[in-house]
Amino acid sequence: MCDEWIEENWAGLVRHGLKVRAWLHDETSPFQRIQVADTEPYGRVLMLDGIFQTSERDEHYYHEMLAHPALVTAPEIARVLIVGGGDGGTARQVLRHAEVRELVMVEIDERVVRVSQEYLPGIASAFGDARLELRFEDGVRYLADAPDGAFDVIILDGSDPVGPSRSLFGAAFYQQCARVLEPAGVFALQSESPNVMGDLWREVQGALRGVFPRVHPYFGYAPLYGCGMWTWTHCSRCVDPLAVIERRAGAVEHHTRYYHRGIHRGAFALPNELRRGFD
Amino acid sequence: MCDEWIEENWAGLVRHGLKVRAWLHDETSPFQRIQVADTEPYGRVLMLDGIFQTSERDEHYYHEMLAHPALVTAPEIARVLIVGGGDGGTARQVLRHAEVRELVMVEIDERVVRVSQEYLPGIASAFGDARLELRFEDGVRYLADAPDGAFDVIILDGSDPVGPSRSLFGAAFYQQCARVLEPAGVFALQSESPNVMGDLWREVQGALRGVFPRVHPYFGYAPLYGCGMWTWTHCSRCVDPLAVIERRAGAVEHHTRYYHRGIHRGAFALPNELRRGFD
Repeated sequence: MCDEWIEENWAGLVRHGLKVRAWLHDETSPFQRIQVADTEPYGRVLMLDGIFQTSERDEHYYHEMLAHPALVTAPEIARVLIVGGGDGGTARQVLRHAEVRELVMVEIDERVVRVSQEYLPGIASAFGDARLELRFEDGVRYLADAPDGAFDVIILDGSDPVGPSRSLFGAAFYQQCARVLEPAGVFALQSESPNVMGDLWREVQGALRGVFPRVHPYFGYAPLYGCGMWTWTHCSRCVDPLAVIERRAGAVEHHTRYYHRGIHRGAFALPNELRRGFD
Repeated sequence: MCDEWIEENWAGLVRHGLKVRAWLHDETSPFQRIQVADTEPYGRVLMLDGIFQTSERDEHYYHEMLAHPALVTAPEIARVLIVGGGDGGTARQVLRHAEVRELVMVEIDERVVRVSQEYLPGIASAFGDARLELRFEDGVRYLADAPDGAFDVIILDGSDPVGPSRSLFGAAFYQQCARVLEPAGVFALQSESPNVMGDLWREVQGALRGVFPRVHPYFGYAPLYGCGMWTWTHCSRCVDPLAVIERRAGAVEHHTRYYHRGIHRGAFALPNELRRGFD
């Protein structure tokens, strides 16, 4: 058997490789290269333009932490928008909440959805839900055309700022999200790692703080990404991410593999050196 | 400039490589190979027998979490023993507590201490403390000869179970630690990752539960290890790791880069799937 590896090389600084059992898919869509491999440590993994996206073994750390803190704390969650999220893992977590009546998911690359449905059916399992409207178009354009206050919760589930995700970073895009968000609503996004990617992390936090009155990064694990820690950020005009979590978190934690109320509270305890950096 | 990397290959499953700026040291002691490199993402890193041990950039995640939960919760902390810990990072954290009167550190390989003093002086900074007794001998033998109840806190700071750390894993060694521990004391150890290293993790937890009435794994980050999450375990006959933390944690958290009371509480919130596995 060959000694084959699938490897991410992050900015020429860190290489993270997984032993491959079998290569399952490799195509170049109009937007990016899409690869799927079956690996020893993580099961099946999805890679876009050379960057690990998700895997069977660790997807819950990422998708549960992106979706639930926002959905558990927003005053209303009837209307939810996901930008990106082509593998379907975030949509699956959002749709666990019975109060969600309408979920619009705007993904630029239909091929990511189709490949995920074929090779990662456990993650891409919610595309048949009647509450989901799946649109294959540019998230930037969709938001520009959307009316003010159209959604109670907006979740940004993009890759690193290379390829088609580049336009989903920065103050201009966050400003559109704030406009399309219901004034009492919550905007949540994956916000990279303060470790290794420190400059990018600070840039994202700075841009968010220029747009939203309340910006709360929270911490967790994303083993596949090889950085040792990952962050997401909870943004709003006036929502305390720790104030009211019992009812919805208590309901959803029966179904989650990672998230529960204790994880929610712990995730917002910033490491000392980052807490000091914010003072 | 050459494209050089320092890489850990964990069990043929995961490769984690860091871009090297300069190779600083490489020797083979009577016990193991000892390498130090200056890397782009983590600054200077120490590797033993091909396994990353610590780095300038991320050492606080590991050493603070190994030392402080035990020291903050044990009823008495006057007499402390560290087994392993040659880079000095754990001793440095232990000695932050003014109540520690005597710290014995038993490290089998003097060369790890000397190399750390030369190349990682910021981590190996506490070896001059008058409370520290540094002994270069086999931890297994030291514990076999030690009297019952000799220490209020014992900290096991070993590498993965390869090379000289192998004998520091398993029920026989944990039983000796329990005997040498003051009955009301706390034993803490690094206990590997449940991710990727799941079998080893369960093996360690099972062995600990056969020896100590209270066994509480807790979670955090060890970016350098490339597993995305790391665990340490708090073991005792009767100490609740969340009951009494205010006084000592409140004092030490002025000096720590990562640890504080919120981190302490959050770290003991087990992921759902592991919590269920323990029911």
